Amino acid sequence: MGLIVQKYGGSSVADAEGMKRVAARIVATKKAGHQVVVVVSAMGDTTDELIDLANAVTPIPQGRELDMLLTAGERISMALLAMAINNLGFEALSFTGSQAGVITDSVHGKARIIDVTPGRIREAIDAGSIAIVAGFQGISQDTKDITTLGRGGSDTTAVALAAALDADVCEIYTDVDGVFSADPRAVPAARKLKTVTYEEMLELAAAGAKVLHLRCVEYARRFNLPIHVRSSFSPNEGTWVVENHPEGDTMEQAIISGVAHDKSEAKITIVGVPDRTGVAARIFQSIADNDINIDMIVQNVSAAATGLTDISFTLPKSEGQKATQVLQRIQGEIGFASILFDDTIGKLSLVGAGMRSHPGVTATFFAAMADAGVNIEMISTSEIRISIIVREADLERGAKAAHTAFGLDADQIEAVVYGGTGR
Amino acid sequence: MGLIVQKYGGSSVADAEGMKRVAARIVATKKAGHQVVVVVSAMGDTTDELIDLANAVTPIPQGRELDMLLTAGERISMALLAMAINNLGFEALSFTGSQAGVITDSVHGKARIIDVTPGRIREAIDAGSIAIVAGFQGISQDTKDITTLGRGGSDTTAVALAAALDADVCEIYTDVDGVFSADPRAVPAARKLKTVTYEEMLELAAAGAKVLHLRCVEYARRFNLPIHVRSSFSPNEGTWVVENHPEGDTMEQAIISGVAHDKSEAKITIVGVPDRTGVAARIFQSIADNDINIDMIVQNVSAAATGLTDISFTLPKSEGQKATQVLQRIQGEIGFASILFDDTIGKLSLVGAGMRSHPGVTATFFAAMADAGVNIEMISTSEIRISIIVREADLERGAKAAHTAFGLDADQIEAVVYGGTGR
Repeated sequence: MGLIVQKYGGSSVADAEGMKRVAARIVATKKAGHQVVVVVSAMGDTTDELIDLANAVTPIPQGRELDMLLTAGERISMALLAMAINNLGFEALSFTGSQAGVITDSVHGKARIIDVTPGRIREAIDAGSIAIVAGFQGISQDTKDITTLGRGGSDTTAVALAAALDADVCEIYTDVDGVFSADPRAVPAARKLKTVTYEEMLELAAAGAKVLHLRCVEYARRFNLPIHVRSSFSPNEGTWVVENHPEGDTMEQAIISGVAHDKSEAKITIVGVPDRTGVAARIFQSIADNDINIDMIVQNVSAAATGLTDISFTLPKSEGQKATQVLQRIQGEIGFASILFDDTIGKLSLVGAGMRSHPGVTATFFAAMADAGVNIEMISTSEIRISIIVREADLERGAKAAHTAFGLDADQIEAVVYGGTGR
Repeated sequence: MGLIVQKYGGSSVADAEGMKRVAARIVATKKAGHQVVVVVSAMGDTTDELIDLANAVTPIPQGRELDMLLTAGERISMALLAMAINNLGFEALSFTGSQAGVITDSVHGKARIIDVTPGRIREAIDAGSIAIVAGFQGISQDTKDITTLGRGGSDTTAVALAAALDADVCEIYTDVDGVFSADPRAVPAARKLKTVTYEEMLELAAAGAKVLHLRCVEYARRFNLPIHVRSSFSPNEGTWVVENHPEGDTMEQAIISGVAHDKSEAKITIVGVPDRTGVAARIFQSIADNDINIDMIVQNVSAAATGLTDISFTLPKSEGQKATQVLQRIQGEIGFASILFDDTIGKLSLVGAGMRSHPGVTATFFAAMADAGVNIEMISTSEIRISIIVREADLERGAKAAHTAFGLDADQIEAVVYGGTGR
């Protein structure tokens, strides 16, 4: 009846048993009368193992060759998955990113999709086959070289292919039951969300929720393509990522959809910065020139007596050393006093379209933090998100407190039965 | 000065150390002023491991999907090799069979090369790069699907590419020093040959010598392309496979170039076959219809009293069970008495262009076997080869005796210093 694009991650197809389980699931969808296109990642740790091999022959693998190497991973999993489906009596054909018409720019390692021309896929499914497509990869429009889309790229492949094929839904299979109101490992009362909006999902992804990759959600929003995030280990409904919460749900829609927390960031404080025009620009230009992504920035009011201020920003822990070196190089030119590096922070975020119409959210949030004894070090807000930086040791306690304060706990709303591992 | 195509097998690039060693060797060739195109196989046991994975998901992998799977092996090795060369400061670009223009028919698992259009390879080497090409694979002209050329296919890729690029030589690197007058494991006095003709090499390959694949030699002969078989572990000259032995070598050219022995065959004897027209044809048609390759056939004169004869043939041991079943199915129709299966035989072959002009070769050969106490069970001859079937237990003794009888032993001709492992 419909056309369904399904995406299975590496943990779902980590071994032959996983392949067979996923194959059965795909065949069940086909038997239900749908046309099925499947996007698959490399098996288990294959990508990491290939990177280890590359590092064994050279300290700096060229992007073109690294992409050639890494795309072998999906080639293996897609061929095996097609075989496993064939073994169940259904025809399946595997296609590389190039064969599937995934056309990208030439930026190896993090190519962006320019166009998708899925002629061979359409032909295969119209002939009754199940099409298996390698995630994460494409072919460069200019050089005709093989490219990869970067981490999480298979989700993007699935959504882009679903959009190009005008699919009814893109199902993203994972090892959790869907998108949760918080990470269940930290907040046991977290519940699975029935729906989240693209906007909320984007903010959740940016705030550190790892279920869906930012680019894939952006792509889905652009084409208004529904994503269904669900577990490959259970038949339960997962979470629908859609344009708007369904009409009927509006009344019971919580102000906050979810609480995200993230331990992957560090904080750098530049102490004693001269409060002159252009100084901040100079600092952050240097950071950007070195391809370092920063997240939150806070600048204090300068002390009138000294004309000096402090600037703090957060960034991925892994970029900390590089950023510190960049700043040391411009210390003389800028004339600041010192650099403080702190990697024991955590970021706690509230996300929800509902906060637009509820001005008291910030006050409730901060009060909950105060009651829980969690000190707030930095604050950053967007239209539907509030993020704070706290001590890493306080992070999970803060997440639980916020979850309860906004009435998100499972027993506060509904009893939810988890079918999966809850991880 | 020249254009050299080099082929490295899986054992040469089995690990990171092997990759680096091969990379250094390639760079040395480039530094000597040559344009270099390299064909590489999958690392070590990768292909076998991928086949195991396929067998874990289905008993009968589809050819198209199995080819998709197996080609991941060369993709990994070629990318790593390109990285290892880049790491030495030389530009290397890797290309899949499809990118290199290796166009085949659509017979998955044993595709034949139809055409080679190496435009991208030419472009890369003209720009000063070293081109690394995946062996063993191509793209089907009709279906645009990925194909593989079957075992030994990387040698064929190398020779086909060398022919298409009008290369000066195709160097086949292996773990032995070249082509030997016999297998040194069985005949310690075996010596490395300076040259063999295409014709001799074809007969040696057909007789069980494993150094070069039959198809690759056929291809080289068709384009009169010199092959240089040499060790990747030593700088020594190996064996040149050429149209004719060099003029100056004619006088010292032995009658026999080499002695090959092969334990991979079994013998089937069909006992009590009615000696009627068409019976043998019916038998071998059934065998051929089941894709079983047979080698030698012997039919005895029928006994006048009974009008019955025995037919014996040899075939790969691995096909024995299948062939026996085929014959049992037609036993009633043909009306023969019984089938005998014997997998304890060995095949011993003499090969040499010189035997054309030396009529006494057969007599010398058989006398040597008699002296060594080796019983001859079947005989088959071509213009430059004599093969006999003997007991498997007698095979190596027979090989040594033949080697000595034709004056091939190293101390009979020249002292040869082996640089490699001699395996």
